[in-house]
Amino acid sequence: MKCYFKEDIESLDRKERLKLINAVSGVKPGNLIGTADRSGNTNLAVFSSVVHLGSDPALLGMIVRPVEEVPRHTYRNILETGYYTINHIHPSFVEKAHYTSAKFDDKVSEFERCGLDAEFRDGFAAPFVKQSQFKMGMGFLQDIEIPQNKTHLIIGEIQQLIIPDDAFSGPEIDLEKTEAVGISGLNSYYRLIKLADFPYAREKEVPRFGKKDGS
Amino acid sequence: MKCYFKEDIESLDRKERLKLINAVSGVKPGNLIGTADRSGNTNLAVFSSVVHLGSDPALLGMIVRPVEEVPRHTYRNILETGYYTINHIHPSFVEKAHYTSAKFDDKVSEFERCGLDAEFRDGFAAPFVKQSQFKMGMGFLQDIEIPQNKTHLIIGEIQQLIIPDDAFSGPEIDLEKTEAVGISGLNSYYRLIKLADFPYAREKEVPRFGKKDGS
Repeated sequence: MKCYFKEDIESLDRKERLKLINAVSGVKPGNLIGTADRSGNTNLAVFSSVVHLGSDPALLGMIVRPVEEVPRHTYRNILETGYYTINHIHPSFVEKAHYTSAKFDDKVSEFERCGLDAEFRDGFAAPFVKQSQFKMGMGFLQDIEIPQNKTHLIIGEIQQLIIPDDAFSGPEIDLEKTEAVGISGLNSYYRLIKLADFPYAREKEVPRFGKKDGS
Repeated sequence: MKCYFKEDIESLDRKERLKLINAVSGVKPGNLIGTADRSGNTNLAVFSSVVHLGSDPALLGMIVRPVEEVPRHTYRNILETGYYTINHIHPSFVEKAHYTSAKFDDKVSEFERCGLDAEFRDGFAAPFVKQSQFKMGMGFLQDIEIPQNKTHLIIGEIQQLIIPDDAFSGPEIDLEKTEAVGISGLNSYYRLIKLADFPYAREKEVPRFGKKDGS
């Protein structure tokens, strides 16, 4: 085993630290965020920081890098229009999804440049990714700045949810069947293989594990 | 495809909605959070909401359910002591990890009840999971309440990071090799299969994709 203390992490080369620390949270969900500016120019960007906040209301968060550093088209468009889409990445277009992370000029749509199709549905203001089978139209609710590093937590509510007909295994969504993609670090992509489903854990039904359970 | 609008989601049965909405963010990282109270009583709980916040300083967030609803031992211990551990779940103990989610009495340690070993390292105040090969000692920094649903974003800094010697494939952490586990919904667990690594995306090096790229 390797052990890094705080000072070891701080003294790493910047790129080395970026690669390491971006992987330690474990697998991250691979999503494309679709937006448009006021004039209708579309934007698409890969994000690995979407996080479940609650089911009722149905809320998702995502972390956006500091706004001052470089132009953040996704962030600006969300604040300008109040709408964005979250689109699951699938293995069939994982390379195209990755390259949306390049810094393109404001006038370039990552949809066109990266060979993905913008899809407008039911009058929703932000573009979906046509190639994605699992996607959401989001309404922006709040922007919370993380004081320690000036990143932002963007909170949104699900207004539309589109999923494949065969997304379920029994009562549960099956992300192996829907071909969801995971990310680690900045550059590594994974597919998912179902290991197990377990029942809701009730105290009285917890199995007796090993010799340390006092039984 | 199935399409749910906001009103459809709101009118779902509570359990149905929980299962559905807990899966839509995509794959979530499977981690066990280790804490101890002031008297040294240990606690362990599965969390799927750890999120990368930044690399310099090395910050991670996690979402904790509303504090008023039921006793939240993990949350209380983090605030009491200022320390917690994040431990990757591996397939070898995924069932034990799942059952830490049962509501045990305050006096019961999930370590003992679920057959996992508490490990104290280098004088760190919170217990690690011995069976986990990839784990972090965290110092609590801040507690931000999410106004929409009273969940909390707990922000912490990595003070110790323990990873396997063979965690890397080249310069990147490889979560297939380290046997990280993903979660969807509340009950489904996945292992990871590496799909691809791509280089850092520079604008001039983006491949020409499909016919829509204007070339």
